[in-house]
Amino acid sequence: MTLTSPGPTVGVVGGGQLGRMLGEAAAPLGLELLVTDPTPDCPAAPVVRDQIVGDFDEAATLRELAERADYLTFEIELADPDVLERVAEETGTPVHPAPETLRTIQDKLVQKRRLSDAGVPVPEFRAVDTADDLREACEELGYPAMLKARTGGYDGRGNIRVEGPEDVADAFDEIAGPAMVEAMVDFERELAVMGCRGADERDTFPVTETIHREEILRESVAPARASRAVRERARDVAHDVFDVMEGRGVFGIELFETTDGEILLNEIAPRPHNSGHWTIEGCHTSQFEQHLRAVTGQPLGSTDQRFPTVSTNILGDVSERQPAELRGEDSVLGTPRAHLHWYGKLEVYGLRKMGHVTLTDDDRDGLLADARDLRDGLTFE
Amino acid sequence: MTLTSPGPTVGVVGGGQLGRMLGEAAAPLGLELLVTDPTPDCPAAPVVRDQIVGDFDEAATLRELAERADYLTFEIELADPDVLERVAEETGTPVHPAPETLRTIQDKLVQKRRLSDAGVPVPEFRAVDTADDLREACEELGYPAMLKARTGGYDGRGNIRVEGPEDVADAFDEIAGPAMVEAMVDFERELAVMGCRGADERDTFPVTETIHREEILRESVAPARASRAVRERARDVAHDVFDVMEGRGVFGIELFETTDGEILLNEIAPRPHNSGHWTIEGCHTSQFEQHLRAVTGQPLGSTDQRFPTVSTNILGDVSERQPAELRGEDSVLGTPRAHLHWYGKLEVYGLRKMGHVTLTDDDRDGLLADARDLRDGLTFE
Repeated sequence: MTLTSPGPTVGVVGGGQLGRMLGEAAAPLGLELLVTDPTPDCPAAPVVRDQIVGDFDEAATLRELAERADYLTFEIELADPDVLERVAEETGTPVHPAPETLRTIQDKLVQKRRLSDAGVPVPEFRAVDTADDLREACEELGYPAMLKARTGGYDGRGNIRVEGPEDVADAFDEIAGPAMVEAMVDFERELAVMGCRGADERDTFPVTETIHREEILRESVAPARASRAVRERARDVAHDVFDVMEGRGVFGIELFETTDGEILLNEIAPRPHNSGHWTIEGCHTSQFEQHLRAVTGQPLGSTDQRFPTVSTNILGDVSERQPAELRGEDSVLGTPRAHLHWYGKLEVYGLRKMGHVTLTDDDRDGLLADARDLRDGLTFE
Repeated sequence: MTLTSPGPTVGVVGGGQLGRMLGEAAAPLGLELLVTDPTPDCPAAPVVRDQIVGDFDEAATLRELAERADYLTFEIELADPDVLERVAEETGTPVHPAPETLRTIQDKLVQKRRLSDAGVPVPEFRAVDTADDLREACEELGYPAMLKARTGGYDGRGNIRVEGPEDVADAFDEIAGPAMVEAMVDFERELAVMGCRGADERDTFPVTETIHREEILRESVAPARASRAVRERARDVAHDVFDVMEGRGVFGIELFETTDGEILLNEIAPRPHNSGHWTIEGCHTSQFEQHLRAVTGQPLGSTDQRFPTVSTNILGDVSERQPAELRGEDSVLGTPRAHLHWYGKLEVYGLRKMGHVTLTDDDRDGLLADARDLRDGLTFE
């Protein structure tokens, strides 16, 4: 390939923190980024060539994006696969990953069915269209079970734990739409693997341990504190997932390590993922650079790990929506090998992802505790 | 300090590759960058909030920059210190490093006198106002000697080697202005140290070996292949240089290691420097992040080295000015631990700095040869 100036333009649907970190990774590669996001002055705006203000599913917006770009991709699952597909066809601008993949993943039931059909181990699940379906499924799978809206959920939204028969009616009412229910997994820990599919390569990043609370990711530990055998199994499962995905790009693959050492697939995100933010410092190639390499058909970079790494999210700790003012950042900036990543969101609210802190060291002992200490010194109050 | 959105804005005089790499470093810290550069669509433009098109010494341009920024800095010595000083005073926006430092450095004779007065070892030098001055100085210092224009030179421009008495008249005519002459240094190798002065900290990055040809930097090797004692002496000299500099920021300090193991200061750049580009991958904090931390008064980051690192410049290899089209980048992208940095310049000409490639490894053996091989596979022809 030939590198030119201005370089190829990658149009990104979504300009949140993922778009911002894609922007940070684009310039060294000679790529220009253009994002579309409904929020004027979105997090990506200051570090990309331009933002088109518009909805993720608005045909005119996506067409403008496609016309001004050489490649299309998305950093948010809310992108409309039908519109993306049509716009790509009309403009000739390729979309990666394929809209078909997005369509599969947007519907959690379809996602699980396709993965299961491909031989990927998943928790037992059932489709749920009525409260009776839910009751029947729970009796088969056992209580508690996890009821999930088929579409639109993220960071635990759209998921409801059904503790017993008395919860069934309320849970079904609350989900208010097509759903699926899964057997609750008794897990030792949660793991994640970032996979990447290039033009004719497949690779995975080292297995990450993900620690959630209230279903929101708090910390990522890499390498995961799981046995070598479990980590190998996790990477194998991630490789099996490739068969379900079409098109190029990185995929976030969330897994359970069960108490008996099995790996079960939880969910997939067809884009860079929070559990891979640590790769910016922790690997020779970050998930963001890797995604851009893949989308533009360049060779993939090395996914080897540089050193043990923990990253921890900076979440909103306020009860009311208010202008974002973070106190305590000096302690992060003053700590050797700690790296601040601020997303530039104008307002903070409870549990909103506002940034993250990554800490590296030559060994993993104490790293998680140190990273938590750093994060706990930060507040928006 | 409190981190807000939008974050503090740093106004940068100059939007070349240094401005571009400052832009890449700014977003994670929550800083916004605004640059001014006379070339529309300068290298920094795609990765910063905005570019003000205007000359480096134009008062109206710098005033607009100062009015829209919380801090001012510069990535090019052509910034006018008088205008910067006046604008800073009028708008209350602080400039780092201090314009006084820029003034000192812009005049190579003043620079050398101040450094010498501060006890920094420098090659013997004399002021040259007439051809007779030059002849007399050369007789004292010995032939060959290096005649240097006091102002305006860079990358070897403005430097003329005076081989013998027969060259004196022509050399003086060619320089056409106030000059100085230096004893030619018999050096073992050239070294560089990036120094950084924060709000109340001083630190230096590991000593780099710099390899020039035709007075243009080709490769940087870190750590330098010099003895530990020499490297320590180089860092000590860099610390002495701090006493001559006012204000905060990083400084590129170019040194000679003489054949008898002494360190002599060659030149200073009051800004991030080509010899420090390797720090992006090679150190826990890059020179660009460090500069932004310093300018905004944040704690400095760790300057510890991650692993042995070599960077090599991608220079124009064409004889005529033409649109920039680089062939061979795939081999760089396909090499594990090689990192491409493209500057986004629209046109290439002979020896123009178009980008650089950084290669890291766990030991230094073979790294320079491998980096050269990678670079030699790139061409604009």
